[in-house]
Amino acid sequence: MNERPLILISNDDGYQAKGIAALVDMVRKFGDVFVVAPDAPRSGASMGITAHDPVRNKLIKEEPGLTVWSCSGTPDDCVKMAFEVLLPRRPDLVLGGINHGNNCAVNAHYSGTVSIAFEGCIKQVPSVAFSSGYLQADADFEGMRPVVEKVVAYVLEHGLPKGVCLNVNAPAAQTFQGIKVQRMGMGDWHEEWQEAQHPHGWNYYWIAGYYAPFDPQDRTSDTWAFDHGYVAITPLQLDLTAYEAMNELKILQE
Amino acid sequence: MNERPLILISNDDGYQAKGIAALVDMVRKFGDVFVVAPDAPRSGASMGITAHDPVRNKLIKEEPGLTVWSCSGTPDDCVKMAFEVLLPRRPDLVLGGINHGNNCAVNAHYSGTVSIAFEGCIKQVPSVAFSSGYLQADADFEGMRPVVEKVVAYVLEHGLPKGVCLNVNAPAAQTFQGIKVQRMGMGDWHEEWQEAQHPHGWNYYWIAGYYAPFDPQDRTSDTWAFDHGYVAITPLQLDLTAYEAMNELKILQE
Repeated sequence: MNERPLILISNDDGYQAKGIAALVDMVRKFGDVFVVAPDAPRSGASMGITAHDPVRNKLIKEEPGLTVWSCSGTPDDCVKMAFEVLLPRRPDLVLGGINHGNNCAVNAHYSGTVSIAFEGCIKQVPSVAFSSGYLQADADFEGMRPVVEKVVAYVLEHGLPKGVCLNVNAPAAQTFQGIKVQRMGMGDWHEEWQEAQHPHGWNYYWIAGYYAPFDPQDRTSDTWAFDHGYVAITPLQLDLTAYEAMNELKILQE
Repeated sequence: MNERPLILISNDDGYQAKGIAALVDMVRKFGDVFVVAPDAPRSGASMGITAHDPVRNKLIKEEPGLTVWSCSGTPDDCVKMAFEVLLPRRPDLVLGGINHGNNCAVNAHYSGTVSIAFEGCIKQVPSVAFSSGYLQADADFEGMRPVVEKVVAYVLEHGLPKGVCLNVNAPAAQTFQGIKVQRMGMGDWHEEWQEAQHPHGWNYYWIAGYYAPFDPQDRTSDTWAFDHGYVAITPLQLDLTAYEAMNELKILQE
Protein backbone atom coordinates (compact mmCIF):
# COMPACT_ATOMS: atom_id res chain seq x y z
CA MET A 1 0.00 0.00 0.00
CA ASN A 2 1.48 3.30 -1.07
CA GLU A 3 -1.34 5.42 0.31
CA ARG A 4 -0.87 7.03 3.68
CA PRO A 5 -3.25 5.72 6.33
CA LEU A 6 -6.55 7.60 6.57
CA ILE A 7 -7.47 8.49 10.16
CA LEU A 8 -11.01 9.56 11.09
CA ILE A 9 -11.27 11.66 14.25
CA SER A 10 -14.34 12.82 16.15
CA ASN A 11 -15.05 13.93 19.71
CA ASP A 12 -17.91 15.00 21.95
CA ASP A 13 -16.62 18.40 23.01
CA GLY A 14 -17.11 19.90 19.54
CA TYR A 15 -14.73 20.49 16.63
CA GLN A 16 -13.40 23.68 18.20
CA ALA A 17 -12.26 22.00 21.43
CA LYS A 18 -8.59 22.04 22.34
CA GLY A 19 -8.55 18.27 22.92
CA ILE A 20 -9.42 17.38 19.34
CA ALA A 21 -6.89 19.90 18.00
CA ALA A 22 -4.23 18.27 20.15
CA LEU A 23 -5.14 14.78 18.92
CA VAL A 24 -5.08 15.92 15.29
CA ASP A 25 -1.66 17.46 15.81
CA MET A 26 -0.31 14.28 17.47
CA VAL A 27 -1.44 11.87 14.74
CA ARG A 28 -0.85 13.83 11.50
CA LYS A 29 2.59 12.22 11.21
CA PHE A 30 0.88 8.81 10.87
CA GLY A 31 -1.44 9.63 7.97
CA ASP A 32 -4.08 11.88 6.46
CA VAL A 33 -6.52 13.12 9.06
CA PHE A 34 -10.25 13.55 8.45
CA VAL A 35 -12.25 15.21 11.23
CA VAL A 36 -16.04 15.05 11.50
CA ALA A 37 -17.00 16.45 14.89
CA PRO A 38 -20.05 18.03 16.55
CA ASP A 39 -20.64 21.74 15.98
CA ALA A 40 -20.92 22.26 19.77
CA PRO A 41 -20.35 20.24 22.95
CA ARG A 42 -22.28 16.95 23.27
CA SER A 43 -20.99 15.59 26.61
CA GLY A 44 -22.77 12.52 27.92
CA ALA A 45 -24.26 11.69 24.51
CA SER A 46 -23.42 8.02 24.86
CA MET A 47 -24.13 6.18 21.58
CA GLY A 48 -27.18 8.35 20.95
CA ILE A 49 -28.27 9.07 17.39
CA THR A 50 -30.43 11.98 16.21
CA ALA A 51 -33.69 10.19 15.48
CA HIS A 52 -36.20 13.07 15.46
CA ASP A 53 -34.31 15.97 13.88
CA PRO A 54 -32.51 16.58 10.61
CA VAL A 55 -28.71 16.62 10.72
CA ARG A 56 -26.51 19.12 8.89
CA ASN A 57 -22.84 19.20 8.09
CA LYS A 58 -20.40 21.98 7.15
CA LEU A 59 -16.92 21.98 5.66
CA ILE A 60 -14.69 23.93 8.03
CA LYS A 61 -11.20 23.42 6.63
CA GLU A 62 -9.44 21.58 3.81
CA GLU A 63 -5.65 21.53 3.51
CA PRO A 64 -3.11 18.89 2.46
CA GLY A 65 -3.41 15.99 4.90
CA LEU A 66 -6.26 17.52 6.93
CA THR A 67 -10.00 17.91 6.29
CA VAL A 68 -12.40 19.17 8.97
CA TRP A 69 -16.20 18.98 8.90
CA SER A 70 -18.62 19.97 11.62
CA CYS A 71 -21.91 18.15 12.08
CA SER A 72 -25.06 19.16 13.95
CA GLY A 73 -25.63 15.63 15.30
CA THR A 74 -24.24 13.49 18.07
CA PRO A 75 -20.70 12.01 18.13
CA ASP A 76 -22.16 8.74 16.86
CA ASP A 77 -23.96 10.60 14.04
CA CYS A 78 -20.59 12.17 13.13
CA VAL A 79 -18.99 8.74 12.61
CA LYS A 80 -21.97 7.43 10.63
CA MET A 81 -22.03 10.64 8.52
CA ALA A 82 -18.28 10.35 7.90
CA PHE A 83 -18.43 6.75 6.70
CA GLU A 84 -21.40 7.09 4.39
CA VAL A 85 -21.38 10.70 3.21
CA LEU A 86 -18.05 12.47 3.73
CA LEU A 87 -14.96 10.21 3.75
CA PRO A 88 -13.21 9.64 0.40
CA ARG A 89 -12.66 5.94 1.35
CA ARG A 90 -12.86 3.61 4.33
CA PRO A 91 -10.54 4.88 7.06
CA ASP A 92 -7.75 2.74 8.53
CA LEU A 93 -8.32 4.00 12.04
CA VAL A 94 -11.10 5.74 14.00
CA LEU A 95 -10.16 7.93 16.98
CA GLY A 96 -12.29 9.71 19.56
CA GLY A 97 -11.02 12.57 21.72
CA ILE A 98 -8.97 13.81 23.34
CA ASN A 99 -11.90 14.18 25.72
CA HIS A 100 -11.84 16.89 28.36
CA GLY A 101 -12.59 14.58 31.29
CA ASN A 102 -11.91 10.90 31.93
CA ASN A 103 -14.16 8.07 30.78
CA CYS A 104 -13.02 5.38 33.18
CA ALA A 105 -15.23 2.63 34.56
CA VAL A 106 -18.99 2.57 33.91
CA ASN A 107 -18.65 6.12 32.56
CA ALA A 108 -17.60 4.49 29.29
CA HIS A 109 -21.33 3.76 28.90
CA TYR A 110 -22.32 7.44 29.09
CA SER A 111 -19.41 8.69 27.00
CA GLY A 112 -19.76 10.20 23.55
CA THR A 113 -16.01 9.76 23.08
CA VAL A 114 -16.20 6.03 23.69
CA SER A 115 -19.26 5.80 21.42
CA ILE A 116 -17.02 6.96 18.55
CA ALA A 117 -14.77 3.96 19.11
CA PHE A 118 -17.76 1.59 19.39
CA GLU A 119 -19.26 2.92 16.15
CA GLY A 120 -15.89 2.47 14.44
CA CYS A 121 -15.92 -1.05 15.84
CA ILE A 122 -19.38 -1.71 14.30
CA LYS A 123 -17.90 -0.47 11.00
CA GLN A 124 -15.08 -3.00 11.54
CA VAL A 125 -12.26 -0.45 11.64
CA PRO A 126 -9.72 -0.43 14.53
CA SER A 127 -10.84 2.28 16.95
CA VAL A 128 -9.52 4.05 20.04
CA ALA A 129 -11.06 6.58 22.46
CA PHE A 130 -8.63 8.97 24.20
CA SER A 131 -9.65 10.88 27.33
CA SER A 132 -7.80 13.07 29.78
CA GLY A 133 -8.39 13.96 33.39
CA TYR A 134 -8.07 17.63 32.41
CA LEU A 135 -11.53 19.17 32.28
CA GLN A 136 -10.57 22.79 31.52
CA ALA A 137 -11.18 24.19 28.04
CA ASP A 138 -7.58 25.48 27.86
CA ALA A 139 -5.89 22.35 29.28
CA ASP A 140 -2.44 21.39 28.00
CA PHE A 141 -2.67 17.85 26.57
CA GLU A 142 0.98 17.74 25.44
CA GLY A 143 1.89 15.17 28.10
CA MET A 144 -0.31 12.62 26.32
CA ARG A 145 1.67 12.86 23.06
CA PRO A 146 3.96 9.86 23.70
CA VAL A 147 0.98 7.76 24.80
CA VAL A 148 -1.11 8.68 21.75
CA GLU A 149 1.86 8.00 19.45
CA LYS A 150 2.55 4.63 21.05
CA VAL A 151 -1.07 3.46 20.90
CA VAL A 152 -1.69 4.72 17.35
CA ALA A 153 1.55 3.18 16.05
CA TYR A 154 0.64 -0.14 17.69
CA VAL A 155 -2.94 -0.22 16.37
CA LEU A 156 -1.94 0.84 12.83
CA GLU A 157 0.62 -1.98 12.77
CA HIS A 158 -1.22 -4.77 14.60
CA GLY A 159 -4.90 -3.86 14.32
CA LEU A 160 -7.26 -4.91 17.10
CA PRO A 161 -9.27 -8.09 17.63
CA LYS A 162 -12.65 -8.12 15.86
CA GLY A 163 -15.32 -6.35 17.92
CA VAL A 164 -12.77 -4.83 20.33
CA CYS A 165 -11.84 -1.15 20.70
CA LEU A 166 -9.62 0.67 23.20
CA ASN A 167 -10.56 3.12 25.95
CA VAL A 168 -7.47 5.14 26.95
CA ASN A 169 -7.64 7.39 30.02
CA ALA A 170 -4.74 9.61 31.10
CA PRO A 171 -4.64 11.49 34.41
CA ALA A 172 -4.57 15.30 34.55
CA ALA A 173 -0.77 15.47 34.57
CA GLN A 174 2.12 16.11 32.20
CA THR A 175 3.99 12.94 33.14
CA PHE A 176 2.66 9.53 34.12
CA GLN A 177 3.74 6.58 36.27
CA GLY A 178 3.43 4.41 33.16
CA ILE A 179 0.74 2.61 31.17
CA LYS A 180 -1.45 -0.13 32.64
CA VAL A 181 -3.82 -2.43 30.76
CA GLN A 182 -6.78 -2.61 33.14
CA ARG A 183 -10.33 -3.88 33.27
CA MET A 184 -13.34 -1.52 33.34
CA GLY A 185 -14.15 -0.55 36.93
CA MET A 186 -17.55 -0.70 38.57
CA GLY A 187 -19.11 2.09 40.61
CA ASP A 188 -21.90 4.64 40.66
CA TRP A 189 -22.64 8.35 40.89
CA HIS A 190 -23.90 10.02 44.07
CA GLU A 191 -25.80 13.26 44.71
CA GLU A 192 -26.59 13.22 41.01
CA TRP A 193 -29.12 16.05 40.94
CA GLN A 194 -28.67 19.64 42.04
CA GLU A 195 -32.02 21.31 42.55
CA ALA A 196 -32.57 24.95 41.60
CA GLN A 197 -35.55 27.27 41.39
CA HIS A 198 -36.76 29.15 38.35
CA PRO A 199 -37.73 32.83 38.92
CA HIS A 200 -41.38 31.77 38.40
CA GLY A 201 -41.18 29.35 41.30
CA TRP A 202 -40.87 25.90 39.75
CA ASN A 203 -37.93 23.59 40.40
CA TYR A 204 -35.45 22.21 37.94
CA TYR A 205 -32.36 20.06 38.21
CA TRP A 206 -28.79 19.98 36.93
CA ILE A 207 -27.04 16.64 36.65
CA ALA A 208 -23.91 16.73 38.77
CA GLY A 209 -22.53 14.76 41.70
CA TYR A 210 -19.47 12.59 42.08
CA TYR A 211 -18.45 9.14 40.93
CA ALA A 212 -17.29 6.57 43.48
CA PRO A 213 -15.95 3.10 42.69
CA PHE A 214 -17.62 0.19 44.50
CA ASP A 215 -14.16 -1.08 45.46
CA PRO A 216 -11.50 1.68 45.54
CA GLN A 217 -8.80 -0.85 46.55
CA ASP A 218 -9.27 -2.96 43.42
CA ARG A 219 -5.90 -2.52 41.66
CA THR A 220 -7.14 -4.15 38.44
CA SER A 221 -9.58 -1.36 37.50
CA ASP A 222 -9.02 1.55 35.12
CA THR A 223 -10.13 3.92 37.89
CA TRP A 224 -7.43 2.66 40.24
CA ALA A 225 -4.68 3.12 37.64
CA PHE A 226 -6.00 6.56 36.65
CA ASP A 227 -6.22 7.64 40.29
CA HIS A 228 -2.65 6.49 40.90
CA GLY A 229 -0.99 8.39 38.07
CA TYR A 230 -1.04 5.69 35.38
CA VAL A 231 -2.54 5.87 31.93
CA ALA A 232 -5.25 3.17 31.89
CA ILE A 233 -5.88 1.26 28.66
CA THR A 234 -9.00 -0.89 28.68
CA PRO A 235 -10.04 -3.04 25.74
CA LEU A 236 -13.84 -2.84 25.38
CA GLN A 237 -16.02 -5.28 23.48
CA LEU A 238 -19.01 -4.51 21.31
CA ASP A 239 -20.67 -7.80 22.20
CA LEU A 240 -22.65 -7.16 25.40
CA THR A 241 -23.83 -10.76 25.84
CA ALA A 242 -23.45 -12.10 29.39
CA TYR A 243 -22.55 -15.60 28.19
CA GLU A 244 -22.16 -16.98 31.72
CA ALA A 245 -25.76 -16.10 32.55
CA MET A 246 -27.29 -17.84 29.54
CA ASN A 247 -27.60 -21.35 30.90
CA GLU A 248 -29.56 -20.59 34.04
CA LEU A 249 -31.99 -18.46 32.00
CA LYS A 250 -32.90 -21.35 29.72
CA ILE A 251 -35.63 -22.24 32.23
CA LEU A 252 -37.52 -19.31 30.64
CA GLN A 253 -37.64 -21.25 27.33
CA GLU A 254 -39.87 -23.95 28.82
CA MET B 1 -41.38 -8.79 53.64
CA ASN B 2 -45.00 -7.65 53.80
CA GLU B 3 -44.58 -4.79 51.37
CA ARG B 4 -45.56 -5.34 47.78
CA PRO B 5 -42.63 -5.16 45.36
CA LEU B 6 -41.93 -1.68 43.99
CA ILE B 7 -41.46 -1.65 40.22
CA LEU B 8 -39.87 1.33 38.43
CA ILE B 9 -40.79 1.67 34.76
CA SER B 10 -39.43 4.03 32.12
CA ASN B 11 -39.25 4.04 28.33
CA ASP B 12 -37.89 6.06 25.44
CA ASP B 13 -41.13 6.67 23.53
CA GLY B 14 -42.48 9.01 26.22
CA TYR B 15 -44.90 8.51 29.11
CA GLN B 16 -47.93 8.78 26.82
CA ALA B 17 -46.85 5.92 24.53
CA LYS B 18 -49.07 2.87 24.26
CA GLY B 19 -46.15 0.51 24.95
CA ILE B 20 -45.49 1.84 28.43
CA ALA B 21 -49.21 1.80 29.27
CA ALA B 22 -49.33 -1.85 28.20
CA LEU B 23 -46.32 -2.74 30.36
CA VAL B 24 -47.79 -0.94 33.39
CA ASP B 25 -51.03 -2.84 32.94
CA MET B 26 -49.22 -6.18 32.65
CA VAL B 27 -47.11 -5.80 35.80
CA ARG B 28 -49.48 -4.08 38.26
CA LYS B 29 -50.50 -7.49 39.61
CA PHE B 30 -46.90 -8.02 40.77
CA GLY B 31 -46.50 -4.86 42.83
CA ASP B 32 -46.76 -1.10 43.09
CA VAL B 33 -45.74 0.61 39.87
CA PHE B 34 -43.79 3.87 39.70
CA VAL B 35 -43.34 5.42 36.25
CA VAL B 36 -40.77 8.10 35.45
CA ALA B 37 -40.68 8.51 31.69
CA PRO B 38 -39.66 11.16 29.14
CA ASP B 39 -42.21 13.92 28.37
CA ALA B 40 -41.81 13.18 24.63
CA PRO B 41 -40.14 10.55 22.42
CA ARG B 42 -36.38 10.03 22.88
CA SER B 43 -35.65 7.22 20.43
CA GLY B 44 -31.99 6.39 19.93
CA ALA B 45 -30.96 8.17 23.13
CA SER B 46 -28.65 5.33 24.14
CA MET B 47 -27.31 5.92 27.69
CA GLY B 48 -27.13 9.65 27.09
CA ILE B 49 -27.56 12.06 29.98
CA THR B 50 -28.57 15.72 29.79
CA ALA B 51 -25.27 17.42 30.54
CA HIS B 52 -25.87 20.95 29.23
CA ASP B 53 -29.52 21.69 30.05
CA PRO B 54 -31.63 21.74 33.19
CA VAL B 55 -34.05 18.83 33.67
CA ARG B 56 -37.63 19.19 34.89
CA ASN B 57 -40.14 16.70 36.19
CA LYS B 58 -43.93 16.77 36.56
CA LEU B 59 -46.39 14.61 38.49
CA ILE B 60 -48.90 13.24 35.99
CA LYS B 61 -50.94 10.78 38.00
CA GLU B 62 -51.12 9.32 41.52
CA GLU B 63 -53.54 6.53 42.42
CA PRO B 64 -53.33 3.45 44.67
CA GLY B 65 -50.56 1.25 43.28
CA LEU B 66 -49.57 3.59 40.46
CA THR B 67 -47.60 6.85 40.33
CA VAL B 68 -46.61 8.51 37.04
CA TRP B 69 -44.04 11.29 36.57
CA SER B 70 -42.84 12.80 33.31
CA CYS B 71 -39.29 14.11 32.97
CA SER B 72 -37.76 16.46 30.40
CA GLY B 73 -34.53 14.46 30.21
CA THR B 74 -33.34 11.27 28.54
CA PRO B 75 -34.47 7.76 29.53
CA ASP B 76 -31.27 7.42 31.56
CA ASP B 77 -31.98 10.75 33.30
CA CYS B 78 -35.43 9.38 34.17
CA VAL B 79 -33.95 6.41 36.01
CA LYS B 80 -31.39 8.57 37.82
CA MET B 81 -34.10 11.12 38.72
CA ALA B 82 -36.35 8.33 39.98
CA PHE B 83 -33.74 6.80 42.26
CA GLU B 84 -32.47 9.98 43.84
CA VAL B 85 -35.39 12.39 43.76
CA LEU B 86 -38.77 10.71 43.23
CA LEU B 87 -39.02 7.09 44.44
CA PRO B 88 -40.21 6.53 48.02
CA ARG B 89 -37.63 3.72 48.43
CA ARG B 90 -35.26 1.59 46.37
CA PRO B 91 -37.27 -0.37 43.78
CA ASP B 92 -37.19 -4.16 43.57
CA LEU B 93 -37.23 -4.16 39.79
CA VAL B 94 -36.47 -1.73 36.96
CA LEU B 95 -38.25 -2.18 33.62
CA GLY B 96 -37.82 -0.39 30.28
CA GLY B 97 -40.46 -0.46 27.53
CA ILE B 98 -42.44 -1.82 25.96
CA ASN B 99 -40.48 -0.18 23.15
CA HIS B 100 -42.16 0.45 19.82
CA GLY B 101 -39.48 -1.27 17.72
CA ASN B 102 -37.02 -4.06 18.43
CA ASN B 103 -33.63 -3.58 20.08
CA CYS B 104 -31.93 -6.75 18.91
CA ALA B 105 -28.23 -7.08 18.17
CA VAL B 106 -25.90 -4.05 18.19
CA ASN B 107 -29.01 -1.86 18.35
CA ALA B 108 -28.96 -2.52 22.09
CA HIS B 109 -26.10 0.02 22.11
CA TYR B 110 -28.25 2.80 20.58
CA SER B 111 -31.36 1.99 22.56
CA GLY B 112 -32.84 4.23 25.22
CA THR B 113 -34.95 1.29 26.40
CA VAL B 114 -31.90 -0.87 27.02
CA SER B 115 -30.16 2.07 28.74
CA ILE B 116 -32.90 1.97 31.38
CA ALA B 117 -31.97 -1.62 32.19
CA PHE B 118 -28.24 -0.79 32.24
CA GLU B 119 -28.81 2.15 34.58
CA GLY B 120 -30.88 -0.10 36.85
CA CYS B 121 -27.96 -2.50 36.71
CA ILE B 122 -25.52 0.23 37.80
CA LYS B 123 -27.91 0.89 40.70
CA GLN B 124 -27.70 -2.85 41.47
CA VAL B 125 -31.41 -3.58 41.00
CA PRO B 126 -32.57 -6.43 38.70
CA SER B 127 -33.54 -4.85 35.39
CA VAL B 128 -35.23 -5.86 32.14
CA ALA B 129 -35.79 -4.05 28.80
CA PHE B 130 -38.86 -5.11 26.79
CA SER B 131 -39.16 -4.29 23.09
CA SER B 132 -41.61 -5.24 20.38
CA GLY B 133 -41.33 -5.48 16.62
CA TYR B 134 -44.46 -3.33 16.39
CA LEU B 135 -43.47 0.22 15.47
CA GLN B 136 -46.93 1.79 15.13
CA ALA B 137 -48.16 4.17 17.83
CA ASP B 138 -51.43 2.23 18.14
CA ALA B 139 -49.91 -1.28 18.12
CA ASP B 140 -51.59 -4.02 20.17
CA PHE B 141 -48.97 -5.37 22.61
CA GLU B 142 -51.39 -7.81 24.28
CA GLY B 143 -49.61 -10.83 22.78
CA MET B 144 -46.57 -10.03 24.94
CA ARG B 145 -48.52 -10.31 28.21
CA PRO B 146 -47.61 -13.96 28.97
CA VAL B 147 -43.94 -13.25 28.15
CA VAL B 148 -43.78 -10.16 30.36
CA GLU B 149 -45.53 -12.03 33.19
CA LYS B 150 -43.18 -14.99 32.92
CA VAL B 151 -40.01 -12.86 32.87
CA VAL B 152 -41.14 -10.52 35.67
CA ALA B 153 -42.22 -13.42 37.89
CA TYR B 154 -38.88 -15.15 37.30
CA VAL B 155 -36.76 -12.05 38.00
CA LEU B 156 -38.75 -11.05 41.10
CA GLU B 157 -38.25 -14.56 42.49
CA HIS B 158 -34.68 -15.35 41.42
CA GLY B 159 -33.08 -11.96 40.78
CA LEU B 160 -30.35 -11.66 38.16
CA PRO B 161 -26.57 -12.11 38.40
CA LYS B 162 -24.68 -9.00 39.53
CA GLY B 163 -24.03 -6.66 36.60
CA VAL B 164 -26.39 -8.51 34.27
CA CYS B 165 -29.72 -7.26 32.85
CA LEU B 166 -32.10 -8.72 30.28
CA ASN B 167 -32.92 -7.53 26.78
CA VAL B 168 -36.26 -9.06 25.67
CA ASN B 169 -37.37 -8.66 22.04
CA ALA B 170 -40.72 -9.97 20.77
CA PRO B 171 -41.68 -10.05 17.06
CA ALA B 172 -44.59 -7.99 15.71
CA ALA B 173 -47.13 -10.77 16.25
CA GLN B 174 -49.82 -11.80 18.70
CA THR B 175 -48.45 -15.35 19.15
CA PHE B 176 -44.86 -16.57 19.16
CA GLN B 177 -42.98 -19.78 18.31
CA GLY B 178 -41.63 -19.76 21.86
CA ILE B 179 -38.88 -18.08 23.87
CA LYS B 180 -35.19 -18.47 23.06
CA VAL B 181 -32.24 -17.35 25.18
CA GLN B 182 -29.84 -15.99 22.56
CA ARG B 183 -26.61 -14.05 22.29
CA MET B 184 -26.49 -10.47 20.97
CA GLY B 185 -26.13 -10.50 17.18
CA MET B 186 -23.61 -8.55 15.15
CA GLY B 187 -24.40 -6.45 12.09
CA ASP B 188 -24.55 -2.90 10.77
CA TRP B 189 -26.86 -0.32 9.22
CA HIS B 190 -26.83 0.53 5.51
CA GLU B 191 -27.96 3.59 3.56
CA GLU B 192 -28.03 5.38 6.89
CA TRP B 193 -28.56 8.93 5.64
CA GLN B 194 -31.40 10.24 3.52
CA GLU B 195 -30.47 13.57 1.96
CA ALA B 196 -33.02 16.34 1.57
CA GLN B 197 -32.92 19.98 0.54
CA HIS B 198 -34.04 22.97 2.58
CA PRO B 199 -36.11 25.60 0.69
CA HIS B 200 -33.07 27.93 0.94
CA GLY B 201 -30.93 25.45 -0.93
CA TRP B 202 -28.75 23.78 1.69
CA ASN B 203 -28.79 20.03 2.28
CA TYR B 204 -29.71 18.19 5.42
CA TYR B 205 -29.98 14.54 6.36
CA TRP B 206 -32.37 12.21 8.15
CA ILE B 207 -31.00 9.10 9.77
CA ALA B 208 -32.73 6.07 8.26
CA GLY B 209 -31.63 2.95 6.39
CA TYR B 210 -31.89 -0.70 7.24
CA TYR B 211 -30.10 -3.07 9.58
CA ALA B 212 -28.48 -6.23 8.25
CA PRO B 213 -26.84 -8.94 10.34
CA PHE B 214 -23.29 -9.93 9.33
CA ASP B 215 -24.36 -13.59 9.40
CA PRO B 216 -28.13 -14.06 8.86
CA GLN B 217 -27.77 -17.87 9.18
CA ASP B 218 -26.37 -17.68 12.71
CA ARG B 219 -29.12 -19.38 14.73
CA THR B 220 -27.61 -18.33 18.07
CA SER B 221 -28.32 -14.59 17.65
CA ASP B 222 -31.26 -12.60 19.00
CA THR B 223 -31.91 -11.32 15.48
CA TRP B 224 -32.29 -14.86 14.12
CA ALA B 225 -34.80 -15.82 16.82
CA PHE B 226 -36.73 -12.56 16.40
CA ASP B 227 -36.83 -12.96 12.61
CA HIS B 228 -38.13 -16.52 12.99
CA GLY B 229 -41.06 -15.79 15.26
CA TYR B 230 -39.42 -16.38 18.65
CA VAL B 231 -39.15 -14.01 21.58
CA ALA B 232 -35.40 -13.48 22.07
CA ILE B 233 -34.07 -13.03 25.61
CA THR B 234 -30.45 -11.88 25.79
CA PRO B 235 -28.61 -11.33 29.08
CA LEU B 236 -26.41 -8.22 28.74
CA GLN B 237 -23.49 -7.31 30.96
CA LEU B 238 -22.52 -3.91 32.25
CA ASP B 239 -18.83 -4.81 32.24
CA LEU B 240 -17.57 -4.00 28.74
CA THR B 241 -14.02 -5.28 29.31
CA ALA B 242 -12.70 -7.49 26.51
CA TYR B 243 -10.81 -9.75 28.91
CA GLU B 244 -9.46 -11.99 26.15
CA ALA B 245 -7.72 -9.04 24.51
CA MET B 246 -5.91 -7.87 27.66
CA ASN B 247 -2.85 -10.08 27.48
CA GLU B 248 -1.66 -9.18 24.01
CA LEU B 249 -2.07 -5.48 24.82
CA LYS B 250 0.34 -5.68 27.75
CA ILE B 251 3.13 -4.94 25.28
CA LEU B 252 1.86 -1.34 25.50
CA GLN B 253 2.88 -1.25 29.18
CA GLU B 254 6.57 -1.57 28.34
